Amino acid sequence: MQNEIIERLIEQFRTLPGVGYKSAQRYAYSIIEGSKQRAENFSHAILEAKSKIGFCKTCGNFTDEEICPICKRRNHKIVCVVKEPKDVISMEKVKDYEGVYHVLFGTLSPLENRGPDDIRIRELLDRVGSEGVEEVIMATNPDVEGDATAMYISKLLKPLGVKVTRLAQGVSMGSDLEYADEVTLSRAMEERREIK
Amino acid sequence: MQNEIIERLIEQFRTLPGVGYKSAQRYAYSIIEGSKQRAENFSHAILEAKSKIGFCKTCGNFTDEEICPICKRRNHKIVCVVKEPKDVISMEKVKDYEGVYHVLFGTLSPLENRGPDDIRIRELLDRVGSEGVEEVIMATNPDVEGDATAMYISKLLKPLGVKVTRLAQGVSMGSDLEYADEVTLSRAMEERREIK
Repeated sequence: MQNEIIERLIEQFRTLPGVGYKSAQRYAYSIIEGSKQRAENFSHAILEAKSKIGFCKTCGNFTDEEICPICKRRNHKIVCVVKEPKDVISMEKVKDYEGVYHVLFGTLSPLENRGPDDIRIRELLDRVGSEGVEEVIMATNPDVEGDATAMYISKLLKPLGVKVTRLAQGVSMGSDLEYADEVTLSRAMEERREIK
Repeated sequence: MQNEIIERLIEQFRTLPGVGYKSAQRYAYSIIEGSKQRAENFSHAILEAKSKIGFCKTCGNFTDEEICPICKRRNHKIVCVVKEPKDVISMEKVKDYEGVYHVLFGTLSPLENRGPDDIRIRELLDRVGSEGVEEVIMATNPDVEGDATAMYISKLLKPLGVKVTRLAQGVSMGSDLEYADEVTLSRAMEERREIK
């Protein structure tokens, strides 16, 4: 009974990650009830982002230039390896990090049939081989796939004589031990530090 | 640190109801990572819906015609009053309902400063006065605002000699009494029916 023009807009919203029919319908109705100007701005923002945003030739992150602003200005001796562009935004909260990034666009996943050639590992090895990189920080997520990917990549990097590190894992600042899961607690115990 | 073209797209997604920054960012990245064709289809669907969809002159529901298909074909002696267009989609699940609708586009809400002149009550009174309506079914939501709106409208309609009804309230089919809230149970008791 839904009008087919509305149905087409709902279908477009449903292509967004994690959006079901009811949310898509709510979004579509909000466009129809909103102003003409807003619909035009929205429509234009989609086309502009798709046409102008590409990938940085060095780190792979989204950018509208050939080389992204981070790669242009920062220290290439330290490379922080992340799974996705949004992880760059997260890591940038660490104010005193002055190195650059390498975006893998995925992690190794036998279940989803994603192997080493499907993520940007080759490009990372090329960078480390040619740019005089001294340290590679593996900042993939602290989960099974992220850990496996970090281990796999570190084995390929070590013969190149580069230092490979991994983000520390443990209990979160401000959290309550009562609610920490046992894997997190075990890691925190294993990686405990001496107080000096 | 986010690119400003991407930021603009994120801001557009954030204008959708219930979408926060992280979801908007995920949607924006999905557009950038998706195909050019998909971005064009999405952009076009927004413009098309906004430019072609208007309001039915009779019931107020969304339509791309002057009079919507439901108003064109169905019995105007029974009018079901709903809060929003999506409620028409829900009510249409009642397969043997052959009447038409009236969309209020809101309910009375002193808290949100929305009074009788801000929703389509005037238009409903005009319809009932001129179209030979025999029954008006108040199908606003079974919540405080929906109930108050239904009561308010029914008081205006009764002098016009029309029958005004309200959707029955009670326990849901297939639900478990253990999990029914006390207001629902009280209503179900008050409105209990004799088994014949």
